[in-house]
Amino acid sequence: MEKVILIPSEGMLSEFISILRKTGYSDDKAQKIAEIFTANSLEGIYTHGVNRFPRFIRNTRDRYINPDSEPTLTHASGSLEQWNGNLGPGPLNAVFSVNRAIELSDKYGIGLVALANTNHWMRGGLYGWQAAKRGYVFIGWTNTIANMPAWGAKDPHLGNNPFVLAVPYGKEAVVLDFAMSLYSYGKMESYANEGKKLPYPGGFDKDGTLTDDPEKILESWRTLPIGYWKGASLSLLLDILATILSGGSSVNEITARKAEYACSQVFIAINVNKLQNSPAIEKEVRSIIDDMHASIPVNDETSIRYPGENILKIREESLKKGIPVAGNIWDEIQAL
Amino acid sequence: MEKVILIPSEGMLSEFISILRKTGYSDDKAQKIAEIFTANSLEGIYTHGVNRFPRFIRNTRDRYINPDSEPTLTHASGSLEQWNGNLGPGPLNAVFSVNRAIELSDKYGIGLVALANTNHWMRGGLYGWQAAKRGYVFIGWTNTIANMPAWGAKDPHLGNNPFVLAVPYGKEAVVLDFAMSLYSYGKMESYANEGKKLPYPGGFDKDGTLTDDPEKILESWRTLPIGYWKGASLSLLLDILATILSGGSSVNEITARKAEYACSQVFIAINVNKLQNSPAIEKEVRSIIDDMHASIPVNDETSIRYPGENILKIREESLKKGIPVAGNIWDEIQAL
Repeated sequence: MEKVILIPSEGMLSEFISILRKTGYSDDKAQKIAEIFTANSLEGIYTHGVNRFPRFIRNTRDRYINPDSEPTLTHASGSLEQWNGNLGPGPLNAVFSVNRAIELSDKYGIGLVALANTNHWMRGGLYGWQAAKRGYVFIGWTNTIANMPAWGAKDPHLGNNPFVLAVPYGKEAVVLDFAMSLYSYGKMESYANEGKKLPYPGGFDKDGTLTDDPEKILESWRTLPIGYWKGASLSLLLDILATILSGGSSVNEITARKAEYACSQVFIAINVNKLQNSPAIEKEVRSIIDDMHASIPVNDETSIRYPGENILKIREESLKKGIPVAGNIWDEIQAL
Repeated sequence: MEKVILIPSEGMLSEFISILRKTGYSDDKAQKIAEIFTANSLEGIYTHGVNRFPRFIRNTRDRYINPDSEPTLTHASGSLEQWNGNLGPGPLNAVFSVNRAIELSDKYGIGLVALANTNHWMRGGLYGWQAAKRGYVFIGWTNTIANMPAWGAKDPHLGNNPFVLAVPYGKEAVVLDFAMSLYSYGKMESYANEGKKLPYPGGFDKDGTLTDDPEKILESWRTLPIGYWKGASLSLLLDILATILSGGSSVNEITARKAEYACSQVFIAINVNKLQNSPAIEKEVRSIIDDMHASIPVNDETSIRYPGENILKIREESLKKGIPVAGNIWDEIQAL
């Protein structure tokens, strides 16, 4: 196990800002992108925070990401808009699109922004938090490069297409952010590095047998869709929707390019303040969560949590103690 | 195994119409409801077609379903509307809501109808077909009575909250309709009746061990959410959204009434003809599906299908040969 060091969030933020500036981002964009990578790290999503930062910088240097691009409007039709991300930085394009969907929902009740030609948004949950903390319901998803087989297939033709649902909950939010494969490749790699089995079978080995051995799945690339045939179908539909709504690239078009860029995303915001029952919503959400919390746990060690519940604790702890980063990753970042 | 008989669809339709009329439905409503139950049966969804018809009639006789009710508008805010189903027949309320969401999408691009106080919609996929065959994207879901435990819990506090996504595909559609539990109780009962194991583990036994024995899950009521913790979270979010958007009842409020009535549903339609790329959509969907069909199957017997693909074949075959119905169920229907 690599040595873990604790980096204070301000230190991480300023390090990211300085590297982003060197990489061609304006001061304003460097600040915003650094804040996103730091927030994702503060909230425990290291795979799409600090651990992913070097790749984001490399992708910018390799011009997969254009640091100067801004989204441009392709087509507007009432509460439905199509935007072109112009291969700009994925997280900034996503923040822009959430804000635009919110503006549309302020005007119409529900607003949809479909974004073509954008880049990896890193952690989808962040955009759920962004909208829900401002009091909006958020539904969004992205397509990806093919990394999961169709049901009954051996070779990857589907993306894991992360899907986000978020609801305001007082000053915080209930935020679900999940990929269509049961485990990410990153997660399987960390189990493999520690010599551990997965908690549940996470894919098929080369011979088509369901296995909880991460090494065998990393070898076969046959990850398991959530709910087997169901998650595979959901992945297909999310790709079709992202592609046709944005007019952008599908999973197979992204995959044909070999590198994952120019993906398609959907951002839906709903202004719940426009609902008749808006004053009662917080109480209603609380009552649903209280009911779930009142479940009988399978044992004394199990805590039953709503999605996003744990984030609050991780954020608080990281703010106090610093963000845990593997020493080699921090070295790599400082050398960027 | 019960003897199976083949009923021509016209015979089934007229039988349903006559029973519905006797049960208090107007001629017009009897016709429409009978068409829905017949269509679901023709397309192979017997659990929410012919097999469910007796229960629908009993629920009407018991006044859980009010045959005279029509949906009424509670609140309108642009592309967002809240309707009250007034405990009318679920399938008619759902058809109405899809049509209303389509009207909103014609005006605004995207339209959302949230429906409170409605009844079981039977087969959600039907509404996906309804919208997509008319050329609209459809996203919809319903909450249900609690029938699945939260992740880490023993007792059911979550619904299986079926979710539907549909996209036009030429004159047909790609339609995904799935519940948050891997297997329905109906499916597990049929495996149990045939003395068979489930294809994959579908829940936990009383001692908390994952099992593919349907009898043990029917005993424990601990069904498995798709993707384990992911499907449990998705179920929670769909319930929160259906409840707050409609201002209606949540899973725990439905469950407190002991019988499943007055549930909450969401219907979203998107008018893809308003998109810049609308002329290219059919070709784009075809290209995504062709790419998936080009996957390498795990073996020679496996066919790789998009959701809804098989429905076309079943529909055609049932139209030709009749709809297969268990003899005892047809007897029960004729005695209604």
